[in-house]
Amino acid sequence: MSAHDIDVHGDVHGDVTVEALRLSDELAGGTAKAPSADIAEYALWLGDDALILAQQLGAWISRAPELEEDVALGNIGLDLLGHARSLLRYAGSWDGRSEDDLAYFRDEPEFRSAWLFEQPNGDFAQTIARQFVASAYLFELYSALRHSTDPTLAAIAEKSLKEVDYHRDHSVQWLLRLAGGTEESRTRIIRAVGDVWPFVDELFRDEELIDRLGTAAVRPSTLRAGFDAVVDTVFAEAELTVPAGFSSSAGGRHGSHFTELGHLLAEMQVLARRHPGATW
Amino acid sequence: MSAHDIDVHGDVHGDVTVEALRLSDELAGGTAKAPSADIAEYALWLGDDALILAQQLGAWISRAPELEEDVALGNIGLDLLGHARSLLRYAGSWDGRSEDDLAYFRDEPEFRSAWLFEQPNGDFAQTIARQFVASAYLFELYSALRHSTDPTLAAIAEKSLKEVDYHRDHSVQWLLRLAGGTEESRTRIIRAVGDVWPFVDELFRDEELIDRLGTAAVRPSTLRAGFDAVVDTVFAEAELTVPAGFSSSAGGRHGSHFTELGHLLAEMQVLARRHPGATW
Repeated sequence: MSAHDIDVHGDVHGDVTVEALRLSDELAGGTAKAPSADIAEYALWLGDDALILAQQLGAWISRAPELEEDVALGNIGLDLLGHARSLLRYAGSWDGRSEDDLAYFRDEPEFRSAWLFEQPNGDFAQTIARQFVASAYLFELYSALRHSTDPTLAAIAEKSLKEVDYHRDHSVQWLLRLAGGTEESRTRIIRAVGDVWPFVDELFRDEELIDRLGTAAVRPSTLRAGFDAVVDTVFAEAELTVPAGFSSSAGGRHGSHFTELGHLLAEMQVLARRHPGATW
Repeated sequence: MSAHDIDVHGDVHGDVTVEALRLSDELAGGTAKAPSADIAEYALWLGDDALILAQQLGAWISRAPELEEDVALGNIGLDLLGHARSLLRYAGSWDGRSEDDLAYFRDEPEFRSAWLFEQPNGDFAQTIARQFVASAYLFELYSALRHSTDPTLAAIAEKSLKEVDYHRDHSVQWLLRLAGGTEESRTRIIRAVGDVWPFVDELFRDEELIDRLGTAAVRPSTLRAGFDAVVDTVFAEAELTVPAGFSSSAGGRHGSHFTELGHLLAEMQVLARRHPGATW
């Protein structure tokens, strides 16, 4: 291999377009068609969840308690960013907006993420507790969504499920390790689980949109039993109890968000908004 | 696949150890032996370069001008973190320190990164200019280091080179796109190249340690011609000129660092140092 054998004639814009087409073909089995307004809105819900969590996990690269863990959290973040891109691209194909338009040029009330995904990184235990709830929920969701009558959503779910399976296992191992570790680690994970639990119910709340979508979507309430069974198994092993009490009214699917989101969006959108329509 | 078929009995500590052994075997062709003090110091130089740059790139996840680019910069950061882990693990095997000891428990004067890698993210153009210089240098370095008489260093170089080849191509494509884009993007990339160029010379400075290591290491000065040839080709295509003038005295290999490093280390080390010796 020559050290100077670089292709300086490649066109980046061209590559991006080719890749986008290829992904779209792959996801819909070559028969992609634009979603309906309702399907687009549903894709936005799922895409925003993944996007917001991906951004938060990026902050852990080189800041976790072990280098091994930096790599793991970074990879999980990039997996979620991949899911978000597929979902936002599909959502945007309804009215001609790109994934970047949706990520960088919507204001806070236009985001559709659930509050669980908007919870701050906190300490490492809080990140793990949030990741456990998110992954256990997403595993149930994508397992069911593989059977959606919308072929693009079914393909995205099929592709994402394998990764979410790993994310869930990763967070379970850490949850057990922290719960069974030192007195300090156990105190912290108990507190962290308590901090995220008020935001669990929102994930399983049915909405009119889902009813309208019928078999193209998955009714959140139908996923609760599977989620609870996983939680019960893991918490029994970890000797943790499910926190009782306060459940947040939340409201992410309707554009009402946790206070943290404004700050996250400011960081995420500043570069693209300062120079809209182009790199610069 | 059952949604509840999770192995809650896996031991995370055990997995890490197994993986570490496997990687060490793989890298040294099954005959890994501890490095000499000089080899360990050299591995530290290269490992710190990769570690510091990896940490900085993590901050771009969801903050670049395009989601596609978030993924790319995140992946490059994780590649570099992988190189850093291999190099630091090998360095630490000399005196029994782990990769985590080296990453999280050395103070600033004990780090060995070159100043180029310590330059701040700045705007997107500055990140790209820094990445172009870093990748072009690392490509030359790892190309040559594959022929090191130290089998572990040779194996790490061989493994890393494929990734650095992609990183270099990525930064070249962006450099061309910014230089040939709008007036604003061209102004920014010219400024960015000027900002990083004072830190190029340090990368190619010979040191006594390298002389002592002989054919186990690569003399930095021998890499300069290859680097310059790449720069000339790319800059001709981009219609940029190599900045003349000021060259920083730098001194990263001797523990004297750019002002930015203290802040980076504080962020990187805070969690591990607050609870040394364990997750908590």
